Amino acid sequence: MNMDEFKRELSLNAEKVTAVIKNDAFPDKIEPDFLKEAVRDYPLQGGKRIRSALLSWSCGALGGNPVSARFAAAAVEIYHNWTLVHDDIIDDDPMRRNAPATHAKLAESLAGESNANTKTAKKFGRDFAILAGDIQQGWAAATLLKSMEAGISKEAVLLLSKLLHSEVTVPLISGEALDVEFSHPRPTPPTSEEVERMLSLKTGALLRFCAIAGAVIAIDTSPQGEELRKSNYDSILSDARVAALAEFAGTAGTAFQLRDDWLGVFGDEKTVGKPICSDISEAKPTILLLETISSLNGDELKSFRSFVGRKSLSLSEIDEIRRLTEKSGAADRVNKKALTLLDDAKTRLNAITASRFKNLLHRWVDFLIDRKY
Amino acid sequence: MNMDEFKRELSLNAEKVTAVIKNDAFPDKIEPDFLKEAVRDYPLQGGKRIRSALLSWSCGALGGNPVSARFAAAAVEIYHNWTLVHDDIIDDDPMRRNAPATHAKLAESLAGESNANTKTAKKFGRDFAILAGDIQQGWAAATLLKSMEAGISKEAVLLLSKLLHSEVTVPLISGEALDVEFSHPRPTPPTSEEVERMLSLKTGALLRFCAIAGAVIAIDTSPQGEELRKSNYDSILSDARVAALAEFAGTAGTAFQLRDDWLGVFGDEKTVGKPICSDISEAKPTILLLETISSLNGDELKSFRSFVGRKSLSLSEIDEIRRLTEKSGAADRVNKKALTLLDDAKTRLNAITASRFKNLLHRWVDFLIDRKY
Repeated sequence: MNMDEFKRELSLNAEKVTAVIKNDAFPDKIEPDFLKEAVRDYPLQGGKRIRSALLSWSCGALGGNPVSARFAAAAVEIYHNWTLVHDDIIDDDPMRRNAPATHAKLAESLAGESNANTKTAKKFGRDFAILAGDIQQGWAAATLLKSMEAGISKEAVLLLSKLLHSEVTVPLISGEALDVEFSHPRPTPPTSEEVERMLSLKTGALLRFCAIAGAVIAIDTSPQGEELRKSNYDSILSDARVAALAEFAGTAGTAFQLRDDWLGVFGDEKTVGKPICSDISEAKPTILLLETISSLNGDELKSFRSFVGRKSLSLSEIDEIRRLTEKSGAADRVNKKALTLLDDAKTRLNAITASRFKNLLHRWVDFLIDRKY
Repeated sequence: MNMDEFKRELSLNAEKVTAVIKNDAFPDKIEPDFLKEAVRDYPLQGGKRIRSALLSWSCGALGGNPVSARFAAAAVEIYHNWTLVHDDIIDDDPMRRNAPATHAKLAESLAGESNANTKTAKKFGRDFAILAGDIQQGWAAATLLKSMEAGISKEAVLLLSKLLHSEVTVPLISGEALDVEFSHPRPTPPTSEEVERMLSLKTGALLRFCAIAGAVIAIDTSPQGEELRKSNYDSILSDARVAALAEFAGTAGTAFQLRDDWLGVFGDEKTVGKPICSDISEAKPTILLLETISSLNGDELKSFRSFVGRKSLSLSEIDEIRRLTEKSGAADRVNKKALTLLDDAKTRLNAITASRFKNLLHRWVDFLIDRKY
């Protein structure tokens, strides 16, 4: 499968998921209207919908029909989006996907409507964005429960709902909290191992859930799964193929994060979607930055440190950052680790028999790592 | 049943619910430790646990064993508490139950630990309190799902989970949003009807759910419920006794709100638990305040308006507020309406056969209305 075919499939998945979210009546009764709009905003914008694609194709790869997974696929996208709404408040980030973030849009709507001052409008925006995310979290859980309408058994729906709360919400929010903590003034910066662990909680937990949910739905709905279902639903989770898909997703997530660090310094602005070296100018403790700092010393370390947190970076400064990052050996180490993990992830797929969906999963991780395509 | 017996039963319920919450492993893996503590804080403090009492006794009143309802009872308390954590951020309220609110406690912990300035510490507190509430929402949903361990059928657990998200989260958060909106500067104040509707969303939806959940669990677990269960689980909701209990709870909630308005002006500080006329000094648009304003005119209206939003009120000013509230007729109207609704609520219980649990529900609404006992 070439990358164009893959991208067509990815768009098709996004369209289907968007249609499920759009047609869902859950937000209909929300008041006032501006809150209803805020609740629908991010989930309908979408983005690439990589999480629902992972879920649908994991389902397909174990012989399931991705149509049965449509509500679960919509649920993970709504879920991902509520975490973004709250993240954007916490990071005080005014933009998301080239549009105003939920809290910023709500603040603007008040500032436009009355002659509220900026501080009042900002608080209004934050307050309602907290509430919008709160409803979205409920919406995600309710959408997963709707899976029964797609022919999923009660046992599977209950198992997945339990996993969503305890195996996604707890690690994901813990990861977010650690991320916030790392950025606050503290006596010592986190180590790169601490950051890697934080990222596996913050982004890995939901990716693992997507793979597991797709796999569980496949086993739940396919005739071949009968034996496994009869034993005990929790035992589905120890099935070798389910475990392999979960590892595939988790490893892919870590590879993505490392590669993202690298692209943030060495990629080009258009592909990456944010200014080059923005992590450094925001003093964000990425693995690449921490590795660079721990591998430099003397004047080079001093020079590199002087760029961290500097609001705007000139082209020659960016060149110097690149030079020092390479010189330290960190660039190479981080990039190599990302590519090794990419291979590891693909190796996990050996546990799955060949199919079009398996090919899609191969391409999915390629796409995740290298957004050049 | 006298009020002392009732209060013993209420404490007993609170103890049992607290034990279920305390022994629950859901928060164990939360990181960092201060977030774990914040997540457990409000749910373990408790308060009177009136929601879980309503749920347990509604279960008992329809012939169920409240022990089967223990996870659902814990779930509604955890649920109520996550909404308080987010409410307290939004209202910028530093205290809850005579102790620092979650966001204030988190802010203090940072301010004490490092030499962060107040603004940074306040933001830290708010950010982590958002995350604490987010995890608590998941915890509530997960605890409800645990009901299967108490012998509740999968069908009942799925039905109640669906109701929690769509029939509680949507109206409750909509009510909270309307409440916030009413307090923001706007061209015209809300009408007392708008406020009554807001309150029925904000507090009534969860109370109705408590009654319904208790009733559904009773029908689900008792031999008498077999016929009803066989037809269709959703049909349980239209059973006359379930509907009566839901109306009982919703009506009691509105009566409580009106009586709370009245006690806020005419009660005594110790019983009410907040300064007399604090709603008026905070310019909170209560039904009593709106009714008073719409029934006064001329100098009396002008005089009354001059007290609204005044930070501290003298004893003679409180006397004048009381005089004007009575003179307008609003005091009498609001109090009478509260007592009429109290009677209405009790009348709903006629649909239920006599039992100790029915007596407890009678006392429950008395206790809610008049906290003198």
